[in-house]
Amino acid sequence: MTQRLTLYTAKVSPYAHRVELALEETKLEYTRFEIDLRNKPEWYAPLVNPACQVPAIAYGGPVVDPSQSSPESEKITESLVLLEFVADLTGKLLPKDPVQRAKVRFFIDAVSNTVGPAFVASVIRGEPVAKIHEAIEKIQALLSAEGYAVGSDFTIADAALVPFLARLEVALKNDLGAFEEGTGLKAFEALSSEPKFARYRKYIADVKARDSYKKTFDEEFIHASLSKLSTSRKLAPTS
Amino acid sequence: MTQRLTLYTAKVSPYAHRVELALEETKLEYTRFEIDLRNKPEWYAPLVNPACQVPAIAYGGPVVDPSQSSPESEKITESLVLLEFVADLTGKLLPKDPVQRAKVRFFIDAVSNTVGPAFVASVIRGEPVAKIHEAIEKIQALLSAEGYAVGSDFTIADAALVPFLARLEVALKNDLGAFEEGTGLKAFEALSSEPKFARYRKYIADVKARDSYKKTFDEEFIHASLSKLSTSRKLAPTS
Ligand SMILES: [Ca+2]
Repeated sequence: MTQRLTLYTAKVSPYAHRVELALEETKLEYTRFEIDLRNKPEWYAPLVNPACQVPAIAYGGPVVDPSQSSPESEKITESLVLLEFVADLTGKLLPKDPVQRAKVRFFIDAVSNTVGPAFVASVIRGEPVAKIHEAIEKIQALLSAEGYAVGSDFTIADAALVPFLARLEVALKNDLGAFEEGTGLKAFEALSSEPKFARYRKYIADVKARDSYKKTFDEEFIHASLSKLSTSRKLAPTS
Repeated sequence: MTQRLTLYTAKVSPYAHRVELALEETKLEYTRFEIDLRNKPEWYAPLVNPACQVPAIAYGGPVVDPSQSSPESEKITESLVLLEFVADLTGKLLPKDPVQRAKVRFFIDAVSNTVGPAFVASVIRGEPVAKIHEAIEKIQALLSAEGYAVGSDFTIADAALVPFLARLEVALKNDLGAFEEGTGLKAFEALSSEPKFARYRKYIADVKARDSYKKTFDEEFIHASLSKLSTSRKLAPTS
């Protein structure tokens, strides 16, 4: 039987979003506690995560207010460690077959090397949006022909990927980010219409139809947080 | 029941060494095939790993010569993916408890952020050996008080860590690497004598006593391969 679980998270963080998706998919009961990353509570590092990042899970221990997390609960951090933890706790989100499990983990490794860095490079640091297209093409090539990332069921590979795709879409569609003005919208139009991105579009549509996505992704909030980034545009290299 | 397993590996590679340790610990039967990384066989990328790196595992399929790997076998790559694969195949090298499993994976993440980068920075690129001490101190702080990385049994956390510690030791002890001449030996002496490294020393001694280590680590070979690196010393920045 699973024990009491508190997730320390932040709407803005793609890493924390991964774990929210996983928890919602498994229907595990949990307490969600939002950490304001611009103004982290003083108790967070000493009581929960010395690295002072989200996501973190407190597991087990007595009933306490999340801001008074007990030393008796186990503290677990790092988004990919937490995805495996949720899968281990529930027996869900990972196939049983060792080869299929390896494919899920290989996919997650590819996410770490493509859409994650592309988001940072282009949206945050202002490098050309071509990096985003390249990353999406690489990931698209790894997606199962239909269904989800690896096979017909939603797995931790999807939970690892989706938060980045969701944020990339909002950034491009609204031309919000440190990249050159106008290039985001153009990149979005290509993703929305070019035949070569058809598999990507179907994947995104399938994911958006899921309750886990609807419940965990606040587009308006991400829009507002990305708006702040485009103020850094003047400092970015142009073409 | 497990199927036919071929490991494509290279003695020089710490990443490949991880998987050799894991396989030896589980006593899984496998065929070991050495890839010459300086002169990779033409068939390796098309038949086994498009990324043309070791380690890789071919799993299942018909009996074939490793150089004629069949499309019917599954190809699995990435050392950390492979460690989990070996654990999944055998039910060994990972605790059963989800919290303990999370600790193993958190430890592996720490290895990726400490001794791996320190090896590259100091031994390969010639940055000060202080980086190696810092990395070892960080990892030492995460080791269980006794036994292995996480608890009393050897796990994939140990398999992930040991190849880097083993190579760092050979590099420092013999003052072989791109770091400043003489500083490696000094660093080795500190590791061998200072009280603050006592837990590290006990850990290394425990690991070296295991058959898996004896069978998979060829110190002379690593010594020779590191010797080539110190020729790059003249190009390295000196304090
Ligand atoms: Ca990491």
